[in-house]
Amino acid sequence: MKAGIVGANGYSGVELIRLLLNHPQIKIEMLVAHSTSGMEIQSIYPHLGGIVERRLEAFDADELAARTDVVFFATPAGVSKDLLPECLKRGLICIDLSGDFRLKNPQDYAEWYKKDPADAALLSDAVYGLSELNREQIEGASLLSNPGCYPTATLLGLAPVLKHDMIELNSIIVDGKSGVSGSGKKAVIGNLFGEVNESVKAYKLDHHQHTPEIEQMIEEISGQKTAITFHPHLIPMTRGLLCTTYANLKQGFSTRELLEHYEKFYKKSPFVRIRPLGTWPATKEVLGSNFCDIGLNVDGRTRRLTIVSVIDNVVKGAAGQAVQNLNIIKGWDEQTGLTFTPIYP
Amino acid sequence: MKAGIVGANGYSGVELIRLLLNHPQIKIEMLVAHSTSGMEIQSIYPHLGGIVERRLEAFDADELAARTDVVFFATPAGVSKDLLPECLKRGLICIDLSGDFRLKNPQDYAEWYKKDPADAALLSDAVYGLSELNREQIEGASLLSNPGCYPTATLLGLAPVLKHDMIELNSIIVDGKSGVSGSGKKAVIGNLFGEVNESVKAYKLDHHQHTPEIEQMIEEISGQKTAITFHPHLIPMTRGLLCTTYANLKQGFSTRELLEHYEKFYKKSPFVRIRPLGTWPATKEVLGSNFCDIGLNVDGRTRRLTIVSVIDNVVKGAAGQAVQNLNIIKGWDEQTGLTFTPIYP
Amino acid sequence: MKAGIVGANGYSGVELIRLLLNHPQIKIEMLVAHSTSGMEIQSIYPHLGGIVERRLEAFDADELAARTDVVFFATPAGVSKDLLPECLKRGLICIDLSGDFRLKNPQDYAEWYKKDPADAALLSDAVYGLSELNREQIEGASLLSNPGCYPTATLLGLAPVLKHDMIELNSIIVDGKSGVSGSGKKAVIGNLFGEVNESVKAYKLDHHQHTPEIEQMIEEISGQKTAITFHPHLIPMTRGLLCTTYANLKQGFSTRELLEHYEKFYKKSPFVRIRPLGTWPATKEVLGSNFCDIGLNVDGRTRRLTIVSVIDNVVKGAAGQAVQNLNIIKGWDEQTGLTFTPIYP
Amino acid sequence: MKAGIVGANGYSGVELIRLLLNHPQIKIEMLVAHSTSGMEIQSIYPHLGGIVERRLEAFDADELAARTDVVFFATPAGVSKDLLPECLKRGLICIDLSGDFRLKNPQDYAEWYKKDPADAALLSDAVYGLSELNREQIEGASLLSNPGCYPTATLLGLAPVLKHDMIELNSIIVDGKSGVSGSGKKAVIGNLFGEVNESVKAYKLDHHQHTPEIEQMIEEISGQKTAITFHPHLIPMTRGLLCTTYANLKQGFSTRELLEHYEKFYKKSPFVRIRPLGTWPATKEVLGSNFCDIGLNVDGRTRRLTIVSVIDNVVKGAAGQAVQNLNIIKGWDEQTGLTFTPIYP
Repeated sequence: MKAGIVGANGYSGVELIRLLLNHPQIKIEMLVAHSTSGMEIQSIYPHLGGIVERRLEAFDADELAARTDVVFFATPAGVSKDLLPECLKRGLICIDLSGDFRLKNPQDYAEWYKKDPADAALLSDAVYGLSELNREQIEGASLLSNPGCYPTATLLGLAPVLKHDMIELNSIIVDGKSGVSGSGKKAVIGNLFGEVNESVKAYKLDHHQHTPEIEQMIEEISGQKTAITFHPHLIPMTRGLLCTTYANLKQGFSTRELLEHYEKFYKKSPFVRIRPLGTWPATKEVLGSNFCDIGLNVDGRTRRLTIVSVIDNVVKGAAGQAVQNLNIIKGWDEQTGLTFTPIYP
Repeated sequence: MKAGIVGANGYSGVELIRLLLNHPQIKIEMLVAHSTSGMEIQSIYPHLGGIVERRLEAFDADELAARTDVVFFATPAGVSKDLLPECLKRGLICIDLSGDFRLKNPQDYAEWYKKDPADAALLSDAVYGLSELNREQIEGASLLSNPGCYPTATLLGLAPVLKHDMIELNSIIVDGKSGVSGSGKKAVIGNLFGEVNESVKAYKLDHHQHTPEIEQMIEEISGQKTAITFHPHLIPMTRGLLCTTYANLKQGFSTRELLEHYEKFYKKSPFVRIRPLGTWPATKEVLGSNFCDIGLNVDGRTRRLTIVSVIDNVVKGAAGQAVQNLNIIKGWDEQTGLTFTPIYP
Repeated sequence: MKAGIVGANGYSGVELIRLLLNHPQIKIEMLVAHSTSGMEIQSIYPHLGGIVERRLEAFDADELAARTDVVFFATPAGVSKDLLPECLKRGLICIDLSGDFRLKNPQDYAEWYKKDPADAALLSDAVYGLSELNREQIEGASLLSNPGCYPTATLLGLAPVLKHDMIELNSIIVDGKSGVSGSGKKAVIGNLFGEVNESVKAYKLDHHQHTPEIEQMIEEISGQKTAITFHPHLIPMTRGLLCTTYANLKQGFSTRELLEHYEKFYKKSPFVRIRPLGTWPATKEVLGSNFCDIGLNVDGRTRRLTIVSVIDNVVKGAAGQAVQNLNIIKGWDEQTGLTFTPIYP
Repeated sequence: MKAGIVGANGYSGVELIRLLLNHPQIKIEMLVAHSTSGMEIQSIYPHLGGIVERRLEAFDADELAARTDVVFFATPAGVSKDLLPECLKRGLICIDLSGDFRLKNPQDYAEWYKKDPADAALLSDAVYGLSELNREQIEGASLLSNPGCYPTATLLGLAPVLKHDMIELNSIIVDGKSGVSGSGKKAVIGNLFGEVNESVKAYKLDHHQHTPEIEQMIEEISGQKTAITFHPHLIPMTRGLLCTTYANLKQGFSTRELLEHYEKFYKKSPFVRIRPLGTWPATKEVLGSNFCDIGLNVDGRTRRLTIVSVIDNVVKGAAGQAVQNLNIIKGWDEQTGLTFTPIYP
């Protein structure tokens, strides 16, 4: 099977290259970039020297249709909504890593992304690719919308208690902590080493575009509309994302009981690992891998549940989950090409 | 006035040296250390070469009484409760940077610190040195217990709404993020560069010894007992601490109204800076200084208040506040010797 | 083929686990550790949870002989010289990642490592596993001494000009820069995050134990004894090593001519990549991979050659080269199990 | 005395603000910026909130002449050569932190900076402000050219052996390592956290614009023209610069003899600290201060001298030395306003 990557010169793009090179069923056939088309990918990313030496091409739907079977869109917000439909109508499997096809309600997109939304019919067709929760819808899908990094960590952490109505929905608070690669390879002051290093800050309080995505999925799982508090923080590291999610339990479950519930809930999900009682994951422990590790804590005094979930934002939070979704779409083993052991230290 | 520093070879100890060198009323007279007594401080800390070249001495209360007027204890938990009383009875002003004299209830100390508590009468006498809130008690105090780093950032953030009964006490959640210097200069695996770098993790969920300290002070300010959720996280940076504190408002205040309230509350507190609407502080913006910067956000949808407060954990969270407290004790201008501009970048 | 790892709880040990899990011909059969024997490896290294869950065992040569075919020693200096011979005499292939079998002259070991040397006959038998230079000797070897991290980067950089007598030997200066993982997982003050972060320092000037190793190999390649200057520096990063090597050229070669010479010299070495004219590698560009990337510069004004060579010190500088050497010993393709694309960013 | 800062919105500019705020003889009167004129400095740099709240103004030589006595130019290369003469002719003391007035030969500037040089007469008038070496020329100067960061560390390290003709000039190799703030606050890909973190690289080999500056000063001190090798490296840290300088000794001095020579050479230079035998400085040990710390090593085997010199590139390498030079110009104590203890950890 042949793959094209649109936005191959960004961080998610090069991560897709790393992962697909390790995939036994996929051959990378076409690398598409806008600002750097015509250049050799290895001249921009010398780490690919001797591995993938290929010229970046301009976007051309006919060319993609002629040469590839699946196209990944690793583009900034507002790009794939225009380009992806061209590939979809030519019969290609399209996997979008941006936010363009995540929100079902076009007005939500307009409000949170401050851009024109994609075609409403396509939004309706798009399958939300949170692999562990939506496997059935994903199988055979042709338009796959890959989740955001924060929603992936948050929702995998919340799903077991949401599905079984164990928490008070209006008490959900998500305190997110992310490495800087989450915002892509953009030459902006705020992402400079001199600004990020030796510092931590909160940003986009109540205005992050992943908020409606999390809320939409909470509603889908629980059947109820709710407003959450989601506050992301920028951490001085390149990769890694940790969400600390707080919620009040409806009943007095113990941490041990909940851990058993989570173990059971995810027993067929090889990429979700539940941590033993009294331990919580560090982002470093999933670095370079597609794992989402989850630790729990119930405070008996306040009946409050804390969920600590970590991912590598560029893998499970972007390129890795995209490949996992392609595996599910094609009916391959979910782990195909994704059995990377985390790099430690 | 002459000062002694017990525990001069730790991170808070050398920071006290940096700050006191800049203080017009204080002369450093005696540096006390346990494991390294007999060594020259500049051989352990070459950054002090040519500035402070002095031999570390063993603890000797008579010697301290003979040569100094004030003693700072920058020692690990469980040390000052035995040493400090010896200095106190010899008439010295004692400022303790450890947790030994913070909790009024001896059983709380035993439970959270897993050590024998200090003498109950001394615990009762000790003044809790959260400078901005306790100025009157601090004036003239001889036993000053300097607050923990997390409590300082949390309580300065909460005080204005606590004092005016604006939040639901049982809804308080504190998500703390700290650089690694907060745990001192200890040769343990968990503090190694290879373990901390490129990683973030939660630790001591519901078991951090700063929890009862925060709760005790919330009760003192609000007049009501409450249990909070406090979860600290380790961030890959040396200095800096940010607390994101969540609480439900009792009434529908706007962010703007609360900002005005905070400005007014702290108008006589030169080290507390309130950030303009829609902006929140980064730890880097207080690095090396005694400031506590605070930003606010009210989510109209959930009526939830978020307080983002940052400090340099080694300055306002330890040595800086200790000096500020000495200034208040002696009736000097609170800012004496502490007018450091944050280092940026 | 079954493998044992002695010292499995160190950084090189867990990296061997990561690499061998990816190797089609090897099954990890026995993990040996001293201080942590009896513990589960995943309780020390949670990143291995669900991947390798196995109890660490005490060293037992009979047990290793019964259950494995090859044993890797990822132990601190002074350990394998005693343990390895026990395995060797039981017919196991032994690959030593420590310095115990690198120096042919026992007195050199005593002088530079300040420990008793290994048996002189074994030192003589041991094959020095700088894969690209010693392939013939490595084939079929049973006692393989894996090179140090600094010697690997330095010697791969120097070999092409050494072999062809192009530089003045007495002019060689090696300025090394390494991430902190190079010194292993040791709880010492000097490796704490608070000490390493935001700092760079030189250490062990003229006293680093890799100095005689580099000199021994220079002599072997060039046929001449020489004394080099080798000064390592500690860089605030976890992985990665860069050597800047300076030498005076005997003749006026241009950078372009030398690049061609290097390309030709390494044309059958898939893990050595030569950078185009006017570009030099960054350590990040080989992170997690077995590559050694090399860039060159000739200053026409001084007729001085600069060689910039980078490796991931835990891979090509330790575990990766050890696996590469096993591949060569067994006659497998050198790249078997080692085709990791560097992780970027 | 009143000061203006042109380029106040850059890293050297805000550092000048930090230092001048601490200076008893100086009042900051005017902050000039190009791209951000009209904005409040504290809205760009919130760390200055409550300390310096002042509008950035456009450059206006008349205004500067009317309101200030001394103007610091903390501008990118190519700016001050046009603006500074306007201030100079209006009688202001001008201190230039850029490279525009450092090279005496206009053609050198054109060649290394790729820009048109400043007026040759002004180049000739400009005093090179390496404070420790040029005190006499600096006194009373009106056009002061502040040295580059690499030249400062390199030349303070070399001066004692250059002055006394102790090394072979054609053997000088400078291996520089700098934090990223050295290249200023520029939104370029190469300075992003995701590119710089966990990586070290060499850059601008033989092409760095500080090369002719070092060579010019070597010639001035030694009386002989020479070509050096200077290779800078980018280190994943914000502040700090270390130069490892190699040179062959003409005679067989011991490290101890040279250390004594250095101590004597710098005995009237409070900002230069010579490290004891067998120890070398780390950049962290001068962080935030105006110190240059120097350690030495002589390898008896090769008769090669290694000089390790460290500075905070933003202080002694830029703003701090500029203030030190103003102190010398005005005949004040050299340390006025600069007695900052390094921040540790």
